[in-house]
Amino acid sequence: LERKRAREYGVTIGWRPTGALNAITDVAGVRVGQATVIREGGPDGSGSVRTGVTAIFPGDGLPWHERVYAGTHILNGYGELIGINQIQEWGLLQSPIVLTSSLAIGKAYDATVKWITGQDPETAEDAPMPVVTECDDSFLSDVLEYPLSDDDVFGALDAAARGPVEEGCVGAGTGMQCFDFKGGIGTSSRVLPPDRGGYTVGALVLTNFGDRAELRIDGVQVGLELTDLMPENHSEGSCIAVIATDAPMLPHQVRRLAARAGLGLARTGSTAGNGSGEQMLAFSTGNVLAVDSTEPSVDVRALLDGPGDRSPAVFSPLFAATVEAVEEAVVNALFMSATTRGRDGNVLHALPIDRTLELLERHGRLASA
Amino acid sequence: LERKRAREYGVTIGWRPTGALNAITDVAGVRVGQATVIREGGPDGSGSVRTGVTAIFPGDGLPWHERVYAGTHILNGYGELIGINQIQEWGLLQSPIVLTSSLAIGKAYDATVKWITGQDPETAEDAPMPVVTECDDSFLSDVLEYPLSDDDVFGALDAAARGPVEEGCVGAGTGMQCFDFKGGIGTSSRVLPPDRGGYTVGALVLTNFGDRAELRIDGVQVGLELTDLMPENHSEGSCIAVIATDAPMLPHQVRRLAARAGLGLARTGSTAGNGSGEQMLAFSTGNVLAVDSTEPSVDVRALLDGPGDRSPAVFSPLFAATVEAVEEAVVNALFMSATTRGRDGNVLHALPIDRTLELLERHGRLASA
Amino acid sequence: LERKRAREYGVTIGWRPTGALNAITDVAGVRVGQATVIREGGPDGSGSVRTGVTAIFPGDGLPWHERVYAGTHILNGYGELIGINQIQEWGLLQSPIVLTSSLAIGKAYDATVKWITGQDPETAEDAPMPVVTECDDSFLSDVLEYPLSDDDVFGALDAAARGPVEEGCVGAGTGMQCFDFKGGIGTSSRVLPPDRGGYTVGALVLTNFGDRAELRIDGVQVGLELTDLMPENHSEGSCIAVIATDAPMLPHQVRRLAARAGLGLARTGSTAGNGSGEQMLAFSTGNVLAVDSTEPSVDVRALLDGPGDRSPAVFSPLFAATVEAVEEAVVNALFMSATTRGRDGNVLHALPIDRTLELLERHGRLASA
Amino acid sequence: LERKRAREYGVTIGWRPTGALNAITDVAGVRVGQATVIREGGPDGSGSVRTGVTAIFPGDGLPWHERVYAGTHILNGYGELIGINQIQEWGLLQSPIVLTSSLAIGKAYDATVKWITGQDPETAEDAPMPVVTECDDSFLSDVLEYPLSDDDVFGALDAAARGPVEEGCVGAGTGMQCFDFKGGIGTSSRVLPPDRGGYTVGALVLTNFGDRAELRIDGVQVGLELTDLMPENHSEGSCIAVIATDAPMLPHQVRRLAARAGLGLARTGSTAGNGSGEQMLAFSTGNVLAVDSTEPSVDVRALLDGPGDRSPAVFSPLFAATVEAVEEAVVNALFMSATTRGRDGNVLHALPIDRTLELLERHGRLASA
Repeated sequence: LERKRAREYGVTIGWRPTGALNAITDVAGVRVGQATVIREGGPDGSGSVRTGVTAIFPGDGLPWHERVYAGTHILNGYGELIGINQIQEWGLLQSPIVLTSSLAIGKAYDATVKWITGQDPETAEDAPMPVVTECDDSFLSDVLEYPLSDDDVFGALDAAARGPVEEGCVGAGTGMQCFDFKGGIGTSSRVLPPDRGGYTVGALVLTNFGDRAELRIDGVQVGLELTDLMPENHSEGSCIAVIATDAPMLPHQVRRLAARAGLGLARTGSTAGNGSGEQMLAFSTGNVLAVDSTEPSVDVRALLDGPGDRSPAVFSPLFAATVEAVEEAVVNALFMSATTRGRDGNVLHALPIDRTLELLERHGRLASA
Repeated sequence: LERKRAREYGVTIGWRPTGALNAITDVAGVRVGQATVIREGGPDGSGSVRTGVTAIFPGDGLPWHERVYAGTHILNGYGELIGINQIQEWGLLQSPIVLTSSLAIGKAYDATVKWITGQDPETAEDAPMPVVTECDDSFLSDVLEYPLSDDDVFGALDAAARGPVEEGCVGAGTGMQCFDFKGGIGTSSRVLPPDRGGYTVGALVLTNFGDRAELRIDGVQVGLELTDLMPENHSEGSCIAVIATDAPMLPHQVRRLAARAGLGLARTGSTAGNGSGEQMLAFSTGNVLAVDSTEPSVDVRALLDGPGDRSPAVFSPLFAATVEAVEEAVVNALFMSATTRGRDGNVLHALPIDRTLELLERHGRLASA
Repeated sequence: LERKRAREYGVTIGWRPTGALNAITDVAGVRVGQATVIREGGPDGSGSVRTGVTAIFPGDGLPWHERVYAGTHILNGYGELIGINQIQEWGLLQSPIVLTSSLAIGKAYDATVKWITGQDPETAEDAPMPVVTECDDSFLSDVLEYPLSDDDVFGALDAAARGPVEEGCVGAGTGMQCFDFKGGIGTSSRVLPPDRGGYTVGALVLTNFGDRAELRIDGVQVGLELTDLMPENHSEGSCIAVIATDAPMLPHQVRRLAARAGLGLARTGSTAGNGSGEQMLAFSTGNVLAVDSTEPSVDVRALLDGPGDRSPAVFSPLFAATVEAVEEAVVNALFMSATTRGRDGNVLHALPIDRTLELLERHGRLASA
Repeated sequence: LERKRAREYGVTIGWRPTGALNAITDVAGVRVGQATVIREGGPDGSGSVRTGVTAIFPGDGLPWHERVYAGTHILNGYGELIGINQIQEWGLLQSPIVLTSSLAIGKAYDATVKWITGQDPETAEDAPMPVVTECDDSFLSDVLEYPLSDDDVFGALDAAARGPVEEGCVGAGTGMQCFDFKGGIGTSSRVLPPDRGGYTVGALVLTNFGDRAELRIDGVQVGLELTDLMPENHSEGSCIAVIATDAPMLPHQVRRLAARAGLGLARTGSTAGNGSGEQMLAFSTGNVLAVDSTEPSVDVRALLDGPGDRSPAVFSPLFAATVEAVEEAVVNALFMSATTRGRDGNVLHALPIDRTLELLERHGRLASA
């Protein structure tokens, strides 16, 4: 039985139009690559591995040659976002963004540095500082096996491509848990109308968060009715949200998009649990800061609107688009993630789509029929 | 026609139990005082005033004698929260929290300082730094009249009392706008079960934010169907949320509650608009830091839970309680605020309760009947 | 006996060249206006007033028509910087920067709003949010008299002009205390060499901080030897530092200048005392963001340098220039402030210049000879 | 020729008394372990390795069983401090603090996780998140050899002990550069008088920062006179400062100590260069938060002082003690680091002690004589 994205079942989040792919890759140039690592363990499931890597590039070129402005927001900080200091200080994204399993970030960092210096040995002079972040997949994956290899990371980085993004149990999402269902990778996008700049906002989420009782889909508290299919252990998990836009935003502006990602999570039922790492990173492809300028300053393009000026208001539409895209990306992750058995026989059940649609219909939320 | 709170119509937000009053004053000791300033202008409405002051005290005593731990969170910073630096640095609330109209914060600050030094002249030695914050009521109130007087501020401060809190068009809420309806003051509370400490969380909001098309009540997008009753001008407004709890939380802990208030706003449809000041302040009455200690350090009580320890998990329930209380406080503000005509004949319409309930019922959201 | 600036005595801070005026007004367009309020009290000094207002404009025009990028840094937060939320969120300075006495900020805010709406009534639509900050002058000034009037504030705003800046006991500096000597207003500037952009950095400080035992002038611990001339009460005070530059810096870049101001204070002996408000604000005149754009985005100029690029490194020189300018501005404030008697006969003694120079000479620090 | 610490030559920084060891280990329970990794390369120096690991434990036990409050401050963010999100959110240090070479943090993280789960397999449940930070030693060490092994990291962790701390070219300091001289590890401490609590503050720094022209020792600009002995390349480097205290400080309080560490750096000539990672972490051993509590809250001890209370003022003395200890720790790192030749024959010269002392004497800064 193939699982499909939420919109294919008539589930529509918000009212703003999506991009062509309804994915972060609707933002021109953005590339995503994933490597899934699955290994069977002993008969009892010991040593089973369900993990992987997801890598996001802001453009077609090498990120340290074509740097873009970026910003972060930590809604809850029980998680790692290596690279955050540099982004907050310089406002620059100059590496791929690498998502993986919590205990594997050391290995992923190491491998990404090797990949960068392999592509371009001169970068070693400047101590490349890749962005690496994580959620914990130890319920399904035997993390003490340290299953991730350099090649797994290289695989995700080399696979990065434009176009549709695989969702669900793939890449870093392979072993994740969301609202006590199986979680994983989800994506979505929104496009602003021409008189608001026509900009695109795309979101990619790695969902590993949420209490079942809080789960809302399109405003309907389905978690209060879908009370079975629970895992043996509830874990508070984490959630990574990456936001891309082609709107020409400065570092302090794109940071504001990152903050809105948390509002999209809230609509799905996140209360940013104590042991969760709700970590958001947003970047704009609207300016590419080359490294071959011989001047101390360069021209960049910046959004401008505020009380008193006459420019068309674009920030608020961009904010609302971000909230919608993140909400839908989480829903897509739930719709696309299949039931998975892993370490020690632990099982995470998929969101039951039929029952979910029935609940949405009963609450008048299904688009047409 | 008297307006009633949402729960009295069967509208229930979330599933956690409220305190006895379903108000911020369910947190023992918390007091609220309000002063409403209404003045009629000329026949055309010029010079009409619809403003006021709402004051919150963390306890029964003088706040600078009975200091409590506090923390803030700025979801969007197009607003003023005088006192924020000291709270972030020292983690202390040592004044009443005063809410009023944007252009009146200078006057309110001045008057609050006078009130403090009047109660206790010795405080002048230490430059009392009251907490004063605002939303903009200039659509309904002629702010250039600078209508607020010292006595109005004294009135709110002196009126502070335990017990039920008046909601809607009262105090600082007199002239506010919310989702293009009439907004104002709202409050709500939640109580944790005994095995989670039995703590109470209360919220008071001053609602002056939101786009109609985003309004959700209990997850139902009523704003997409209630498209009439719009004001002549949409303003992005602001929202102040004050969170109180008796859980013994340290400054860095209570700051986390403040951050969750934004998630409650998100559930009602906030996307934290560009020109809005979403400003949150949380405090804990669980420790009262006296000023007469002769030791350099004192014993305080602190919440403790985290991975690896055995203490009952209370942070996540406190976070979820905060989200629910803030969401319901916003809904209460909408239910309780009546249609108001003000400056230049401008009108903000009240949320039409009948039509709202009908929509909720159609979406299966009304508790019984 | 006229007091002179430090350099006129051969005291040179750092090694970078100053601008023509060695003042914040070396940054083209920056204007400073001050109003000094002195009132004699009763025979015992009760009711004596020693206070004032200092206002800084980033350019020649109305700040809300010619907005510039700004950033802040709070080294210690026991102080108020009204307007900080908006600057952190939007990165814009759109008002004059008003410095005054702690208890007078309500009045100063009120008066500045009136001045703004008086200049341009349309601004009332957008709730003008002026930047107002403070240090506590209550040792010399009877703050409970609430001596500041609207006209005093208007006076400082209307007096704003390019050119030399009066230092010492003037404007907001009238009643301040620094390292237990008389403090006040100080200013200084630095100019980068042409191959580093030739940019100017200017600093203006309101000095009301410091323990005598920590005072260093040009690295010499003069405070350990100048142990007399102490006031009756030591107060921890505060320090405001305003940094201006014509380097075209974005909000997140100019914020970094603000952070360096604290390092300049450190060199004079600041340890950012517990009860002090070390508040820094930096702005760049390198971009003026007009309000009449009809496009959602505009071209701006931004500094660019980092590992791997070829542009001339300018950030580090700008940082070092900021540190030097702030250090020298503090020293100028001490050199220019005269002994002052105020409230209740309280006295703050001026730094004894002769003895200071003697100490510097003995430590080989005097330029000439 | 053995190099000695600054005080042994009569160089005294500030005026506050040191602890018995003048080291971070003067704070009872604090342990430091170091592993130095030196490997000779080819005849031309290619492949030469000069690197290592320094590990700091807050107490005698396992840090995740005996958690302490911690806080961080990033003066300039071009560096990594893995673990910062959790410290900012929870305020807890629950791992050793591991310092190493920039490109080795992935490996160091990985190895530290293995060490933790090796000590205590149950911690894998909770995704141990060690604190790992870095400075770049690539001028002397061939970082692309990825020379650090798990055993090197284990070595530093296992070697952790109370008592004197080795300084200079040791552990993570093996290959570092400071003010264009050889840098490395330095430490110092201060003790408050009994009437200020008698608390101890200790600092350990990893110095890899600074422009020669800015170097000040005890206020004397020796860098302007010591203009030879320059390396072939200037690198902006970084600086890590770790502050320990036994004063019972809460997370928001100890964070304030971290911020003061930057002021100590400033006194030595740091202007927090653009490409530098000035990263500070402070912790208090005054409360140990066990993991076996069965209550949701616990008693902790907290510093208390502020305007209006009667407790003895301890924050400001603690701040000044931090500034002094950090300044002296940097000076010790310079005094103790010997000339080192490494990768590709690159050389970093040691601070010439004789000439330095001569300069200090000429400026009247030597204690004895």
